[in-house]
Amino acid sequence: MSTSLSGKGLLLKADLIAAAFRDEVERSLAECSRSPKLVGILSTSSGPSRTYAEFTRKQCESLGFEFVLKETGAALMNGGLGEGEGVEEAIMEANEDDSVDGVMVYFPIFGPQQDHYLQQLVSPYKDVEGLHVKFHYNLYHNIRFISPSSLSAPTSSAAGLTGDEAENDIPPPGMVKSILPCTPLAIVKCLEYAGVYNKILPYGDRAYGKTVVVVNRSEVVGRPLAALLSNDGARVFSVDIDSIQEYTKRPSDPDSSRKYHPRHIVRPPPEAYNTLQACLALADVVVAAVPNATYKIPTAWLKDGCVCVNVAAEKNFEKDVREKASLYIPAVGKVTILMLLRNLLRLQRYQNASPVSTTESPAQ
Amino acid sequence: MSTSLSGKGLLLKADLIAAAFRDEVERSLAECSRSPKLVGILSTSSGPSRTYAEFTRKQCESLGFEFVLKETGAALMNGGLGEGEGVEEAIMEANEDDSVDGVMVYFPIFGPQQDHYLQQLVSPYKDVEGLHVKFHYNLYHNIRFISPSSLSAPTSSAAGLTGDEAENDIPPPGMVKSILPCTPLAIVKCLEYAGVYNKILPYGDRAYGKTVVVVNRSEVVGRPLAALLSNDGARVFSVDIDSIQEYTKRPSDPDSSRKYHPRHIVRPPPEAYNTLQACLALADVVVAAVPNATYKIPTAWLKDGCVCVNVAAEKNFEKDVREKASLYIPAVGKVTILMLLRNLLRLQRYQNASPVSTTESPAQ
Repeated sequence: MSTSLSGKGLLLKADLIAAAFRDEVERSLAECSRSPKLVGILSTSSGPSRTYAEFTRKQCESLGFEFVLKETGAALMNGGLGEGEGVEEAIMEANEDDSVDGVMVYFPIFGPQQDHYLQQLVSPYKDVEGLHVKFHYNLYHNIRFISPSSLSAPTSSAAGLTGDEAENDIPPPGMVKSILPCTPLAIVKCLEYAGVYNKILPYGDRAYGKTVVVVNRSEVVGRPLAALLSNDGARVFSVDIDSIQEYTKRPSDPDSSRKYHPRHIVRPPPEAYNTLQACLALADVVVAAVPNATYKIPTAWLKDGCVCVNVAAEKNFEKDVREKASLYIPAVGKVTILMLLRNLLRLQRYQNASPVSTTESPAQ
Repeated sequence: MSTSLSGKGLLLKADLIAAAFRDEVERSLAECSRSPKLVGILSTSSGPSRTYAEFTRKQCESLGFEFVLKETGAALMNGGLGEGEGVEEAIMEANEDDSVDGVMVYFPIFGPQQDHYLQQLVSPYKDVEGLHVKFHYNLYHNIRFISPSSLSAPTSSAAGLTGDEAENDIPPPGMVKSILPCTPLAIVKCLEYAGVYNKILPYGDRAYGKTVVVVNRSEVVGRPLAALLSNDGARVFSVDIDSIQEYTKRPSDPDSSRKYHPRHIVRPPPEAYNTLQACLALADVVVAAVPNATYKIPTAWLKDGCVCVNVAAEKNFEKDVREKASLYIPAVGKVTILMLLRNLLRLQRYQNASPVSTTESPAQ
């Protein structure tokens, strides 16, 4: 805490935040009849992807999960295969292998569009990262509880119960929790730990009054995160390379067409807030996830006492960020992996609870 | 034909190519008990999107299909809504309206990533454009025949019969044809008409010996087109802003793991062909789909006598393209719309043939 006494903000490492979830995951694992098996698929020569794969293995093994790394494409030394070659086959194989409970793929591989195609190929029953459109749809519509068998049907507005309809955090009989994308969820957990969520406020509105800037609007991190935070009452400025959008919670509406609406509203920001600098001047929380080593958020633009979270593998904040930030979380990976393992434990149960097989018998 | 006599290439308009499909669609429609209803969803202020929507309406009405244009977001004058606002609700509403047989959404809206999310929300039973990952998976894996009920299950490698397993072009009992994405399919139909496919060669290899350059590698046009053409035996150079890839047909392999493989192989090109100019020098066929008015393929780079197809709304070829091209197809939209209506007729039948409802009853 000496840094705090020296007038600088606190450095908050993810280990501390992860500890509580580690205990929860260990307890759930102890109740499993069979240790869940996670398959990681590495198909590129990317150094950071391999490092992340090894990190996954270590975390799995230290907790008692089975982890199998399936290497293909340029990840195989001297295999003569190109970047990403064989990744699609590896996904389908893992989907159809009954001994596999969860599948994670190390991205980026081909670029956002083709990678999104691959994300939709992972069976929702094994999608530990929560990247399937079904789970994003549920997130955007605040659908928290689902029937396990709905995972094998097309996306439907009647897929489950929204947070507004649910009485508490416990799924009704026959229903289970939807899966949330790991990284945005891990960021929310970090912000809860950092005191951004006010526990005196009612559940579902605990970020009310907070202004958050999220730099990144990808389908994997930035957009779901902006939706989660605004669902919880925050005002979110979603900043991307070519535009700024403002996400706010949709006012309650007894109209019957409500079921089709996402839980948040997206609008252009007021004119005075159409620059990053203007948004940062308001921001209680700044989350940056820009995969670019040269991108830096100027410390001078931060509001004094804000909370800063760095999500990218690269450092998106300047070295002196704690001169302004009251709290700085330099990485979230250790929380993300625990969210992933929690999803794995849940999905193993959903597979058992679903009357529909995850794979069809051959049609011929 | 005077242009041909003057030593220039032939201008081949899509109307001519569309005529045969127009007859086919009219005959199928005459056999329907109820005229299929198509809902178009327009959510932006884009002029070209509105023009395309009006074009869809005209084509539908002239043939006897019901067309309803659902306007939302910035497409509504003075509605106070932003670009794309309400598009997700409109999709889900159309999915769940039993009177609607097909849904098409006018893209682009938010950009490739978020648009891909929207494409996955359209029920596969109503996806007349063939943009759902299920249909792309079937295309990439040459799965031509499927069970209608497989459309309500997660993507599976056992989803149907491949072209190699099928004896001919007629689905076996209980199976139906998979849906192909409209635009890539329309381009293939144009190339068939233009004589690029050699009918003396065996079915499935009729583009063998042809070299094709496809400028664009989006998930909507370029990548599925490269796969279709290479599945038919062509050597395809897929050119995008930052790379060139070579697509070729995967050699037959009696190995049982074959079912997981895409039907084509993607590799970096030989070193001598890592520029557009070098690829064009080889190309019998050049397909351009670059949504940029300033992008032009230099006529000087074309191989004498090649076939050129312009897919973008913008002109990607120079005015004098027919000085080199033996055939020039300036647009494919009139063929695309007929592919879409053919898909609509098929999907109406698949909905009726499927034992699974396209919508679930509310879980609560």
